[in-house]
Amino acid sequence: MKLIGPFKQIVTLANLPLRGKLSDDQLEIIENGGILVDDGKVVEIASFEFLKNEAKHSQIELIEDEQICLPAFTDSHTHICFGGNRANDFAMRNAGKTYLEIAESGGGIWSSVQHTRNASEVELLETTLERINSLISLGITTIEIKSGYGLDLENELKMLRVIQKAQTFTNATLVPTCLSAHLKPRDFKGSSEEYLNYIVDEILPQVKEEKLSDRVDIFIEKSAFQPEESKQFLLKAKALGFHITVHADQFTPGSSRIAVEVGAKSADHLEATIDQDIQFLANSETVAVALPGASLGLGEKFTPARKILDYNGILAIASDWNPGSAPMGNLITQASILATFEKLSTAEVLAGITFRSAFALGLDDRGKLEKRKKADFVTFKTDNFQNVLYQQGSLKKESVFIDGIKV
Amino acid sequence: MKLIGPFKQIVTLANLPLRGKLSDDQLEIIENGGILVDDGKVVEIASFEFLKNEAKHSQIELIEDEQICLPAFTDSHTHICFGGNRANDFAMRNAGKTYLEIAESGGGIWSSVQHTRNASEVELLETTLERINSLISLGITTIEIKSGYGLDLENELKMLRVIQKAQTFTNATLVPTCLSAHLKPRDFKGSSEEYLNYIVDEILPQVKEEKLSDRVDIFIEKSAFQPEESKQFLLKAKALGFHITVHADQFTPGSSRIAVEVGAKSADHLEATIDQDIQFLANSETVAVALPGASLGLGEKFTPARKILDYNGILAIASDWNPGSAPMGNLITQASILATFEKLSTAEVLAGITFRSAFALGLDDRGKLEKRKKADFVTFKTDNFQNVLYQQGSLKKESVFIDGIKV
Repeated sequence: MKLIGPFKQIVTLANLPLRGKLSDDQLEIIENGGILVDDGKVVEIASFEFLKNEAKHSQIELIEDEQICLPAFTDSHTHICFGGNRANDFAMRNAGKTYLEIAESGGGIWSSVQHTRNASEVELLETTLERINSLISLGITTIEIKSGYGLDLENELKMLRVIQKAQTFTNATLVPTCLSAHLKPRDFKGSSEEYLNYIVDEILPQVKEEKLSDRVDIFIEKSAFQPEESKQFLLKAKALGFHITVHADQFTPGSSRIAVEVGAKSADHLEATIDQDIQFLANSETVAVALPGASLGLGEKFTPARKILDYNGILAIASDWNPGSAPMGNLITQASILATFEKLSTAEVLAGITFRSAFALGLDDRGKLEKRKKADFVTFKTDNFQNVLYQQGSLKKESVFIDGIKV
Repeated sequence: MKLIGPFKQIVTLANLPLRGKLSDDQLEIIENGGILVDDGKVVEIASFEFLKNEAKHSQIELIEDEQICLPAFTDSHTHICFGGNRANDFAMRNAGKTYLEIAESGGGIWSSVQHTRNASEVELLETTLERINSLISLGITTIEIKSGYGLDLENELKMLRVIQKAQTFTNATLVPTCLSAHLKPRDFKGSSEEYLNYIVDEILPQVKEEKLSDRVDIFIEKSAFQPEESKQFLLKAKALGFHITVHADQFTPGSSRIAVEVGAKSADHLEATIDQDIQFLANSETVAVALPGASLGLGEKFTPARKILDYNGILAIASDWNPGSAPMGNLITQASILATFEKLSTAEVLAGITFRSAFALGLDDRGKLEKRKKADFVTFKTDNFQNVLYQQGSLKKESVFIDGIKV
């Protein structure tokens, strides 16, 4: 048993519901609090002085200076395993070049595929770990990572093996997702339906065999995979035992409905979702994942987060960190900006990057600081927890704890 | 004489025009370049090897690792001298509270005025210097700072004296601006016109006497000062010898026209400027200053930067760092996001935060790396200058040089 504290404020997020709107007066804030941990789990959270008297035989880890403490964050949607970068795409897009012009000059997702295929496992592992550490430095301790820049058996497996290997180098929890259905690769001889069948027949069995991932994702969009073939693909993946998540309604509406129909864990993006589909999604168990990083990277509209919450949906917020549309990789900045445009309370934003985003990954053991939850938390040297979002990412974390241990 | 290098790339911004649109192929990029400096000024920029041979008697400052080099940035609009913070305003506004509800709970500009009045000069100096150093750490070496949270003779002078004092602690160039016309203070007995006369009669002469600032700003807006009284005020300030800048068209249009009419150095904000006023402004010598930090802090629309450039205007981009509407304080993140929404080329963004923003402050000796310019520059450990904006603020600077000396 170890007692950690005292913290000026601990924002526990305890007792907050999984879905729907939240007001800031629902936030439980323990002043001058302590966290009692054992075996990586929270045993009790209360006044530091109280716990010090209660738990006399505990080791005490004193926190210096004034700090506030929040549950560590979960980023439920990233593409941080990739080779190369797409800085030139970004510059060209901002300079008004079209998608086609960018593709013709060697940009687009296909460029990331080529760089990722050409990268060795060691190179990929190194850059992926750098990005993981960058996310941890923001206070994120649970990180979803997608494949999807390999797009053939060999390279999709390479990416997922790199992610599996990365897990052995970090205490953060990595959640790998197979996104072989990111795009039909240029060198695949056959229709997009045939490519989806290739994934089901060749890639997913091997992913399962090697226990590389139990999640399958697909990009349903005019420029990628069409609704009906995607639905059949997802049902087959589900039949193989995979959990489902979907890139839905980024530019054209309709696919979030498929995500709900197949019982997906989450439908991500939703910038273009129409009102009745927001309601349909909000009435389901599928988490709606806002990706403000893509809006800020592309200069396009935001996920209708306010509406999702008003319709009583489950709203998570993730970074979408990827080399093309969302290169910033700062979930705190992004979530704080989403809050100003979508008018989200502090409680709604914090829930969206903690227990609600963990739920999108099927994890209900984290994201709140309460008894028996994973003792992952982040601290900031400031006198008020509101400053974290107020400074829109400029306030840097002081420490990150995983399983009660400072990393 | 000192030779600094070699840099993988030096982006000089040489030969770029003061106004209008820019394409990225207009950027001069010196590969493996060196910067020869003397007495704080650039003597020559060319290939490092060439300069090493040319300038045999120079001291050489070797740059380790691969780095790119850009002219240091100018932030031409900040309010970083203030007491207290407004994190609660931010949380309330995002949670959907109205301006009135926030003011009633003790928020709004008036709250910053009270905290600033209550702060001692030493406290104000300390926090202002912290923010100055935070801006320097982004690569910003020229920083405008406004008064405007004092709002009476004693406290406006206190703020301007603090800024003057801060200048003695930093090598960055501070440009103080008198913004006593930020708001009519609640405790002023009289009309807003009478308050403006009070500034002209009581505050400005003293500012001039103590050489605290040669710039006057006013917030022209329904909730602050009205167009006609503002124009008369600005003409009087001009007659006293002050340069003019204006908070124009943030929520309601019309005041940018006044800025042009009185020959202001800059008209800042412009989120609500109507098309014909954009043209009017673009045809003048008045710099149009976009403040994306306010858009990101409030969740409102951006300054029409694309149109300003297309109409051949002079576009600068500044942070507007202030405790209320723009708390982020990261000009790089903000400028990069403005670029995605407004579709600005890399050259247009870089010009907007360097020589064009310096021009808004009446400074034409900086913001380009060319002969006789101030040797202020910033370096990044990366292989391509595009990465600076591409990573939207996540790529941190490696070193900042002021007058050729690493700070």
